[in-house]
Formats: sequence, C-alpha cells, structure tokens
Amino acid sequence: MIKDSSEFKTIRYEKGEPATRTDMVPRESSIDIYLCGTRLVTLQASPNQLIELAVGFLLSEGLLETLSEYETASIDAESKEVRVEAKNRSKVLSRLLDKGDVIRTSGCSRGMSFGGYDMIGKVNSDLSVSTEKIKTMTREMLKAADLHNACGGVHCSALVKGSEVISMSEDIGRHNTIDKIVGQCSLKGIDMSEGFLLTTGRISSEMVAKCARSRIPVIASMTSPTDLAIRIADKLGVTVVGYVRGNRITVYTHADRITN
Amino acid sequence: MIKDSSEFKTIRYEKGEPATRTDMVPRESSIDIYLCGTRLVTLQASPNQLIELAVGFLLSEGLLETLSEYETASIDAESKEVRVEAKNRSKVLSRLLDKGDVIRTSGCSRGMSFGGYDMIGKVNSDLSVSTEKIKTMTREMLKAADLHNACGGVHCSALVKGSEVISMSEDIGRHNTIDKIVGQCSLKGIDMSEGFLLTTGRISSEMVAKCARSRIPVIASMTSPTDLAIRIADKLGVTVVGYVRGNRITVYTHADRITN
Repeated sequence: MIKDSSEFKTIRYEKGEPATRTDMVPRESSIDIYLCGTRLVTLQASPNQLIELAVGFLLSEGLLETLSEYETASIDAESKEVRVEAKNRSKVLSRLLDKGDVIRTSGCSRGMSFGGYDMIGKVNSDLSVSTEKIKTMTREMLKAADLHNACGGVHCSALVKGSEVISMSEDIGRHNTIDKIVGQCSLKGIDMSEGFLLTTGRISSEMVAKCARSRIPVIASMTSPTDLAIRIADKLGVTVVGYVRGNRITVYTHADRITN
Repeated sequence: MIKDSSEFKTIRYEKGEPATRTDMVPRESSIDIYLCGTRLVTLQASPNQLIELAVGFLLSEGLLETLSEYETASIDAESKEVRVEAKNRSKVLSRLLDKGDVIRTSGCSRGMSFGGYDMIGKVNSDLSVSTEKIKTMTREMLKAADLHNACGGVHCSALVKGSEVISMSEDIGRHNTIDKIVGQCSLKGIDMSEGFLLTTGRISSEMVAKCARSRIPVIASMTSPTDLAIRIADKLGVTVVGYVRGNRITVYTHADRITN
C-alpha cells in the first residue's frame, strides 16, 4: 500500500503567535502509464488506486474501447509504473498511432512540464515578509480578481513587491496564472527576486520550480502544498506558505523569511 | 479584446424553488503556443493575457533562457494561436530538440487528452435526480473523503447510484478522480449509465467528455463549469450542475433530469 499523505514539520502562526507542529500534506507522485509496453503518459497524481487510474484513463481517452479489451495490469510500487496489457494488442497499438495529434491540456493545471529541476540554481534572497502582509495582500488580490468574483471557478495569482500588487492574473489553470505573471513581469523588466507570489491554488512541484526559475523567493497559497512541492522548495531555497486563511498561516520551508 | 467570461441561461434552485437566471461562467480556450514556427503545446486556458502566458510559459520551462532571447509575439485572436519568435533562432530550436523527454503532467488536471469529442455518442438517459439528493450525497462524499479531510489540497469525486456511493476517489488532479472512478466501476462491472457523478472540482470540457464516454448522464460540482464544458455537455446530452453549496444549486444543461 502506497501512502497518499506525508507528515512534515511546519510552523503555524495563529493570531500572530508561531508554533511548531506536524502537519499532513497530500503526496504527489509521477505515475508512468504503459499500454502494451508503450509509455503513454506521465501523470502527476495521488499514489492511490493506481490500477483504477490507469484503466480509467485508457477508457476515458478511448485508448481501450471497452473493458473487454483489458487483459492485466501491474504496478511497480517503487518506480510508480503501471503497465496495462490488452487482449487485442495489434488493434490497440494501431489505435495509439492514430491518436497522433495529442492535445496536451491545462484544465486547472498546465499539462506539460519539461522537468529538469536539477538545472535550477538555488534561490538566495534575504527577503523578509510578515504574516500580516501576506494576509493583507491576499485579501487585496481577491478584491481585484474580477473574473473570480464574477464567475468563480478560476484561479488567481499576484506578485507583490513592498506593499503593492505589481502583477496579477486569472486563469482556469493554476500554472497558467504563474506563467502569465512571469511573462508580464519579464516583458515589463520587473525583477521578481524582490517580490513574493500569492496564489489561490494548490502548490505543486511545478509551481515551486516556476518560482525558482524566476528567482521568486516566497510562494504563499490559500490551500495546501504537496509533499513533492515541499521537498523541491526545500532544495531550491523557496519559502512555501500554505493555508493563508483568516487568522491562520502555515510555513512549510525556509521559515527564516517569514516574520511575525 | 477576447472576453474571458460568457453568459448562460441557467436554472437556479434556491431553498427548493427553481428560477431561470443568466449566469456568468469562465471561458475555456485551447491556446496553441508556437516557438520559432514550431507548435509546442496546446494549453486549456482563460483567453486573457495570452502573450504574457506564452512568454511566461517559455521562460518558466527554460525554453527561453532569458527575456533577451525574446524577439516578438503575435496573437491570432480567431485561431487562438500565439506565435513567439526568438532572436537566436537556431540555438532555441536546438534547445527544443534537447527537451525530448517531455513530462506531461497533471497538477490538478490531467495534462493530456486525445480530443475527438465528435466520436462520442450522445448520452440518452431518463435518469432523474432531485436537487435534495445531489446535496445530501455531496455531503456524504465529503464526510468519507479521508485524504481531503486530513490534508486538504486534493479533489474528490464519487459515483452515486440510487442513494449509495458506489465508487469514490481522491487525487491531487481533478481529472484523475474521474479516471479512478471509471477504472474502478469498469473493473467491477458496474454500469455507470444509471448513476450520477459528484465532484469537488471545476467542470472543464474534458471532465464532461469523460462522463459522456462512460455514459454517465449527470455531473454535479461544488464549483463552476467552464463555457466550453457547457457547450460540449449540451451537445453530448450530459446534465451539468454547478455550485452545489448550502441551499443553492445551479443547472446549466439538460435540466429535465433534475427535479425539485
């Protein structure tokens, strides 16, 4: 049984007072799905119900037309590979070839990342941000989020420098909001290394990598980071803050940048 | 200026009473990003700040190393293509070739879809579900969502038949939750055409397509559908219900399956 959550030591500020705690965060794994020996896709997923995930993915995408085509599935728990075999192997393989024009999608995520976190240098920054400022600026961001306020169902991110929202974006995709901010700041010649990023969405490993590539030292979300995001942020020198809600705020990595 | 929200006629049940309304929903567009003439990726995104999105994506993924490599960008508003040209074309193109081992990711979405909605037959079902049952079963799903309740930051979906949760899943990716349910039900030989699907996450076009492929006639979410999800659900015969919250519930398509 692969566990789908991990424990981390965190610092939670409640009504201004910091306290060391142990918090649970959802795990994020890269799951490779093979069909008849062909690697089809790598999904970032919670490591539970992996055979169900693989079989459901293949059926949902029409790569298996019905369950009658399914033969067996096996999981390699260590490598997180799920291998599905089909009964009519040649027919299934020819269908794979027909599906050449793959749409890589966003949904609320990007849908594509080129990996290579090792190539990203560690973020060195002596930026210091107070919990009060993170909470205040999150409220400011939400006030200005026109699309979010009109429809819901979208994510919002903002880059803050000093006490000002320098760049803001809204999108149905979490990752797209960060890309839009990186694009806007870069085109305007704004140095992101002195700012911090606020977002409504979950912090995944890719979100942390995007910040690190743009030298953004702090990312704060209204919801949870994943375990992989925390591990990568720890390594890349990014401060991860989660659960910015009401009077609470939780710091997961590089807590020295967060003040009371 | 490309609008990032659309208006739809909806039926909102408030304290049991249905009323016809006009609601705003976020738009979902397929954005093709080209770099030096090469089509790189199709993102499902909100159609705003598209040049920022493309430039930020290229920088975040290391396909442009710094903005100094950026030359120009143009948008074709009709085809939703963003074309970015780089100054050092041959260097950038060789970098693209080096990035061969693409990780297609999920984040909170899948990150990969094979399209082909036209191949999915219309869902014909005389299933009838009351607003009360949708609300009650959503509460039941949330009660049973162990990972969600322990950590937050994950999505949850459930397939309900009659008054019973037949299948349930939790995942950091919205799409993965549906794939897990489709996989579980298929492996168990459960006919999904007589059930309805509950989910915590936004309903995108791909979520509707997944339901239609498995002949699930009703999908209900605690948050919003996108405009593209509504249009595709209308065509494929899927009932879309959104904003299942407290005493409210909003029906976007095929409202004849929803009773008071």
